[in-house]
Amino acid sequence: MTSSQPGTLCAQALLAPASVALVGASADPAKNTARPLRFMRKHRYGGRVYPINPARDTVLGERAWPTLDALPEAVEHVFIMVPGAQVEALLEPCARAGARVVTVYSDGFAESDEAGRLRQEALVRQARALGLRLLGPNSIGCADLHGGAILSVNAVFEADDLIPGDISLVSQSGSMMGSLLSRAAARGFGFARSVSVGNEADISVGEVVDALVDDAQTRVILLFMETLRDAPAMARALARARAAGKPVIAYKLGQSAQGDALASTHTGALAGNDAAVDAFLRAHGVMRVRSLEALFELAPLARRYQASRRERTDAPRVAVITTTGGGAATVVDNLGLHGLVAVAPPPDFIARMAERGLRLRETPVIDLTLAATSTQYRDLLEALLRADWCDAVLSVAGSSAQFHPQLVVEPLEAADKPVDKPLAVFLAPDAPQSLARLREAGIAAFRTPEACADALAALLASPGRAPADPRTWQWPSGMPRNGMLTEHQSSRIFASLGVPVARAELVSADAPAHSLAYPVVAKISSPDIAHKTDIGAVRVNLRDAEALRAAAADIQANVARLAPAARIDGLRVQEMRQGLAEFILGYRDDPLAGPTVLLGAGGIHAELAPDIALRLAPIDEAGAWEMIHAVRHTRLVRGFRGLPPGDCAALARAIADFSQLAACTDATIAEAEINPLFVCADGVIAVDGLLRLSA
Amino acid sequence: MTSSQPGTLCAQALLAPASVALVGASADPAKNTARPLRFMRKHRYGGRVYPINPARDTVLGERAWPTLDALPEAVEHVFIMVPGAQVEALLEPCARAGARVVTVYSDGFAESDEAGRLRQEALVRQARALGLRLLGPNSIGCADLHGGAILSVNAVFEADDLIPGDISLVSQSGSMMGSLLSRAAARGFGFARSVSVGNEADISVGEVVDALVDDAQTRVILLFMETLRDAPAMARALARARAAGKPVIAYKLGQSAQGDALASTHTGALAGNDAAVDAFLRAHGVMRVRSLEALFELAPLARRYQASRRERTDAPRVAVITTTGGGAATVVDNLGLHGLVAVAPPPDFIARMAERGLRLRETPVIDLTLAATSTQYRDLLEALLRADWCDAVLSVAGSSAQFHPQLVVEPLEAADKPVDKPLAVFLAPDAPQSLARLREAGIAAFRTPEACADALAALLASPGRAPADPRTWQWPSGMPRNGMLTEHQSSRIFASLGVPVARAELVSADAPAHSLAYPVVAKISSPDIAHKTDIGAVRVNLRDAEALRAAAADIQANVARLAPAARIDGLRVQEMRQGLAEFILGYRDDPLAGPTVLLGAGGIHAELAPDIALRLAPIDEAGAWEMIHAVRHTRLVRGFRGLPPGDCAALARAIADFSQLAACTDATIAEAEINPLFVCADGVIAVDGLLRLSA
Repeated sequence: MTSSQPGTLCAQALLAPASVALVGASADPAKNTARPLRFMRKHRYGGRVYPINPARDTVLGERAWPTLDALPEAVEHVFIMVPGAQVEALLEPCARAGARVVTVYSDGFAESDEAGRLRQEALVRQARALGLRLLGPNSIGCADLHGGAILSVNAVFEADDLIPGDISLVSQSGSMMGSLLSRAAARGFGFARSVSVGNEADISVGEVVDALVDDAQTRVILLFMETLRDAPAMARALARARAAGKPVIAYKLGQSAQGDALASTHTGALAGNDAAVDAFLRAHGVMRVRSLEALFELAPLARRYQASRRERTDAPRVAVITTTGGGAATVVDNLGLHGLVAVAPPPDFIARMAERGLRLRETPVIDLTLAATSTQYRDLLEALLRADWCDAVLSVAGSSAQFHPQLVVEPLEAADKPVDKPLAVFLAPDAPQSLARLREAGIAAFRTPEACADALAALLASPGRAPADPRTWQWPSGMPRNGMLTEHQSSRIFASLGVPVARAELVSADAPAHSLAYPVVAKISSPDIAHKTDIGAVRVNLRDAEALRAAAADIQANVARLAPAARIDGLRVQEMRQGLAEFILGYRDDPLAGPTVLLGAGGIHAELAPDIALRLAPIDEAGAWEMIHAVRHTRLVRGFRGLPPGDCAALARAIADFSQLAACTDATIAEAEINPLFVCADGVIAVDGLLRLSA
Repeated sequence: MTSSQPGTLCAQALLAPASVALVGASADPAKNTARPLRFMRKHRYGGRVYPINPARDTVLGERAWPTLDALPEAVEHVFIMVPGAQVEALLEPCARAGARVVTVYSDGFAESDEAGRLRQEALVRQARALGLRLLGPNSIGCADLHGGAILSVNAVFEADDLIPGDISLVSQSGSMMGSLLSRAAARGFGFARSVSVGNEADISVGEVVDALVDDAQTRVILLFMETLRDAPAMARALARARAAGKPVIAYKLGQSAQGDALASTHTGALAGNDAAVDAFLRAHGVMRVRSLEALFELAPLARRYQASRRERTDAPRVAVITTTGGGAATVVDNLGLHGLVAVAPPPDFIARMAERGLRLRETPVIDLTLAATSTQYRDLLEALLRADWCDAVLSVAGSSAQFHPQLVVEPLEAADKPVDKPLAVFLAPDAPQSLARLREAGIAAFRTPEACADALAALLASPGRAPADPRTWQWPSGMPRNGMLTEHQSSRIFASLGVPVARAELVSADAPAHSLAYPVVAKISSPDIAHKTDIGAVRVNLRDAEALRAAAADIQANVARLAPAARIDGLRVQEMRQGLAEFILGYRDDPLAGPTVLLGAGGIHAELAPDIALRLAPIDEAGAWEMIHAVRHTRLVRGFRGLPPGDCAALARAIADFSQLAACTDATIAEAEINPLFVCADGVIAVDGLLRLSA
C-alpha cells in the first residue's frame, strides 16, 4: 500500500491497544525509557507487551526481544524511544510487525531545527507509504487508564494508583498532560485516556477527538491547546462530539498577545491568532476555560448539564445561596467579571418560601447563615433548581465544609436535581473531604472563586453556532483570480454579494467624465496602491467638474512622483456618502482556523481600544446580529444617549453577505476589507475596500 | 472618663491579651459559644481565662464565674457572646473589670436593620463614655496564634495544631477570616494574629493595622476588604507600615461592578466605589491581588522583596526558566494579561552562559528541558538574579516537583539570592511536598499560573505615591460657599488654581455687550441649570453681534419655557476654542476614600468604553504624568499614527492644579468637573465646567 494520504486511524490501537512493543526499552529502572514497562506492570496492563532491546536478553526481569521482526505475534501499537535519527529505519519493521499506530517519543524533529523538520516530513511520508499512523514525534505518549496501557514516559504514572474514570485528555504539551493528570488525580478525578500529540505530524488533535467520540469509556473530552492544526478534521470531530452529547472543554494558551506569540514559537506553529481559534472553538461548541484547573473542574458540570446549554442574548443569571456572605461575594465578584448576573429571588418566590417557613431577602446573595435547617436548605435548593428566573444555582459553603462535610454534602446529595439547571458548589475554606464527597456524588465543586466563576461562564455561554451554509456565487467574469484587486474591482465583488457599495465610475484621469451627482470623491485606481490616502491619491468633497479636473491632475502628479511604477487603471469617481457611524468589515482566511469575518469599530478612537467581533465565515444574519451586539461601538446606532438609530438590520445583512466571500470556489480569497462601512438611518454603504487573492 | 472620642487602643489587649473573660461561654461543647474556651485550651493559651456563665458553676470542667464583677482580677479583653440586646448592659461591668478591649460577637446591630443600627450607635457612645474600645459588633473574633488567645468562634480553630508565623490577617468578613486561615494552614503558612472587625463600629481596620505595625510577631499584613471605613486612620497606619518595612497586601471585593455593589450592601457600607478605594490602596503602597489565594501566597515574596519595589514607567520584565515549556507558557500567558513582559536573555548573557557550558536560546522562556545539571541550573539562576535586563525571575518546575522535590528545591535553596531581585516559583504538577519545602525555605511558590502571575504583577507594580502636599489657596472672595456654582463661578475657581480657562464675560442676556473677538459661544448662567445644552441654553459659533443677540433671545425663550424657576445671573459669552483632543477632568470627595481626581477621555466614544485614571488628590505633576499614561485616549496627543502632538506638559500642570481643589479649607467641595478640557498644540483650555459644594 502506497499513499500520500493517511490511512484510517484505528481507535483501539491508539487508545486501548491489546498488544504493544516498546522499542528502546531500557534495562536501567532509573532511565525514562524504562518507565513504560514499569508503568504497565505497576498498573496491571492486561494486554501483551514486548520490550525491544537488541543488547539484552531481559529488561527489568522480563524477556526482551532483539527486533520487532523477532516478535512472535502482531502488535497493535509500537512505542519508539530511540534517538530521532534512528526512527525512520524502524517504520518498515513496525509495518511488518502489524502495528496500526506508532507513537514516537524521540525528539529532534520539527521542534528543533530545519534538518529536524525535513526528517519529520520524510518520516510522515514513509509512514503513509506503509499505511502506518504516527503519534508524534516528540510525543510524551498516551495512556489507557482503564486497561493500564501506559505508552508514556511521563512521571505522572509513577503514582501508585491511577483513577479510572470517564474524562479523556488530549494535550499539545507533553509535560502539561502529566501536570493536568496529576492535579486532577490529587482531586480524585478519574480519567479514561490521555494522549499527547507531540509535533502532531500525522495524527492530529481532531483525529484523537474523533476516536474519543467513539470510545465507550470517554464521556467528557478535555483539550490542552497551544495552537490549532488541521481545522477541518477538528471541525468534523467536534461536530460528531456534539451529536454524541460528549462535551469538549478546552484550555488554550494565547489569552494574552504574549501567550499567543509564545505558543506559536513553542510549537513551531504558524503565526498565532487566538481570536480566530477562539471563534473556531466557539463555533464548534467547545467550552473554553481561562483558568488551568477549571479544565477538569468543569467536567462534572459539563457532563451532566451539556444538554441544558442554549443560546442566550441576555447575561446568564445565577441564583447564589450561602452560609458565608464573604465567600459568596468572592464568587459573585468574579461572576461579574465574566458578565454573569447574580440574581435576587423575585417577591413571589420569597413569598412561597416564607409559606414554607424560610425567610429570604430580595438580595443577589441568599444568605441563610445559621437560620436554615438541613431540610429547609434542601427544600430551597429544589425550588431554585426549578425556578424560571435563574439559569444556574451556586451553593457556597463555609466552615462546615471543612469540619462537618456531611452537613454540606447531604442536602446537596439528597436534593432532587433536574438535569436542565446546572448546580455548582464553591467551598470557601480548605475542605478536601467535602470536595471529594461532592465529586463522588457527581456534583461539581470548586476550590477557588476564580475557577468557579470561569467554569460557570464557560458552561452558560451561548454554545456557538456552526458556520452558515455557503451560497453558490460566481466570481464576476473578467476579474483577476490572483493578487491584489483594485478598490473598483473589490467593490464589484462586494456588490455582487449584495453589500451596498457607494456608486462610482472608473473614468480617465485625464478627462474625468462621469454621470454622478456632485459632490464626488476622486481616487486613483491601481492594483499596486493599497494606501491611496498616504500618497495623496484621494480627494474628497469635489463640488463641480472644475474641482474634479483639478483634483485628478493633482492625484496624477502625486502618483507619478510617489508611486511611479504603479499600474494605473484610471480614476475612480465616487458619490460622497456619510453615515451615523463607521465600521470595518474584515475577512481573512486564517492560516489556522480558516475563513473568518470581523466586525470592528471604525475611526481613530477604535484604534486605541480594540472593539471587534470575529466569527467563522460564512455567517447567517442571526450570527451577524450576535456580532453586532458584541461590538460596543454599535451602540452609537442602537439608541445610545438619544442618538439617531442606524439601520442595524442592513448592517446584519451586509455582514452575512460579505462573509459569503468564504463560499467562493473560483478563487482563493486571502483577505478583504471594507473600511469604512457607514451605517446610515436607512441602509449601510461601503465607501472603500480592498480584496487580496492568494497567488 | 466621659468622651465622644475613642480612647487609645491597647495593642496587646487586642492582639495578645494576657487575661480574658468569655461572657456567655456555654457548657455545651457542641455550641459555638463553647468554642473559645475549647480552642484556648486546645491551643494552650498561657494567660488567664474566665468563663462567665450565671447559670453554672463550671463550664467544660472549669470554674465559671457568674458575672464580670465577680472576677478575682482585672482582665484585658472581654469576648461577648450573648444576644445583641443584652450587650449594652455589659459594658459597665466590662469597664469595672478593667477591660481595655471588648470584642462583640453578638449580632443584631447595623448589619440587620435600622433598630440594630441605632443599638450599635448607642453601644459605641457608651463604650466611648466608659473609655472602652470595641471590636465589632458582629465580629467573629480575633486570635493570637502564638499565644493561643483564641477569642473567636470560627471553626477554623478546631484544627489540632495552629501554625504560628509572621503573617497577620485583618478581615472585614468573619467567615472569610476562617476560610483564608484554613487555606493558608493547609499550605503550611504560619500566622501571628487574625482579626475580624465585624461591623467596624469602633476599632477600624486602620487601627488594627496600626497595632500590627507595632507588633513584633507580625512582619506581613494581609487585608480581606469589602469596603473602606475611616480612611484617615487607615492612611496613617499604612504610612507607618511602609516606614516600618511591613508590606501590606489586600484582596478587595469590587473588581466587578456587581461585586462592588454587593460588598456595599453586604456590609451596610456607603455606596461603593472600587476605583476610589483602589486609588487609595495604591497611593498608600498596598499591593492589591485579584485572586483569593494570592493574598497569602504573595506574603513570602512581599516580605523578602518589599525593599525592591520601585516606581516604573515601562512594563516589568520577568526572566522565565523552566523544564516544562507548556507549564511556563501558562504563566507567561497570564503575565501578559497583567501587562508583565516575559523577557528573552540578550546575546551577551547567552554568550556568557555558553562560556560556562550552558546553551540558551534568545526566547522569552528559557527552556532547559533535561539539558542542564543541577549545578548549571543554580549557576543560571544566580546569573539571572544579578542580570540588569530583568526585574524578577520565575522558575517553573515540571514533573520532578511531584516525584523528586529535592531536584527542584535544592538548586533554588542553594542559590545565592540577592534581596533586590524577586524570585518566584510555579509548580506545574500537583506537588504539595515541593510547595512545602519551598515555603520552609522562604521561597515563594505558587499552585496556579493565575495566582502566580497575579502576585508577581502586584509585587512589581509601581508602589504608588502618597497624595501631594496641599497648597495654600484662598476661596475667591464673593463666591458662594455651598450648593451648586454656575459655570462662570466654577471657571473662576479653576482659573484661580492655575487651570487655563476660555476667556468669557458675564453680560446681560437682553443686551449682550462684550469685549471678546468673534466667533463666540453664548450660554445661560444659572446655579440651577446643570445641563444647559439639554434645554437649548447654549449656542456656539456665533459670528457677529447680530447672531449673538438673536442667540441670546432664543436662549432666554428656551430657559423661560423649560426652566422657568431657574435663577438667572446673565449670559456667559465665551471665546470659541478647539483642541486636538478632548478630556474630562473630574474631582470628587469620595465618601470612602476622600478627595480624588480623575482624568478621562472625552466625547461620545469614551462613553462606550471607560478610559479613565483616578488618583487621590491632590496630585503633583509626576503623578499627573502617570495618569496621562494610564488613559489610552491621550495617545491621540502623544504622536499616535502621526497625529500632531498636544501639549501634555500643560495637561499635567492642569491636572495637578485642578487636583488642589482638595486643599480648599474655606469650603467643602463635593465634586467638580471640567468637560471638555481641550488639549491643544500649545497649552490646554477648559471650555465648560461645574463645581458643587457640600451644603
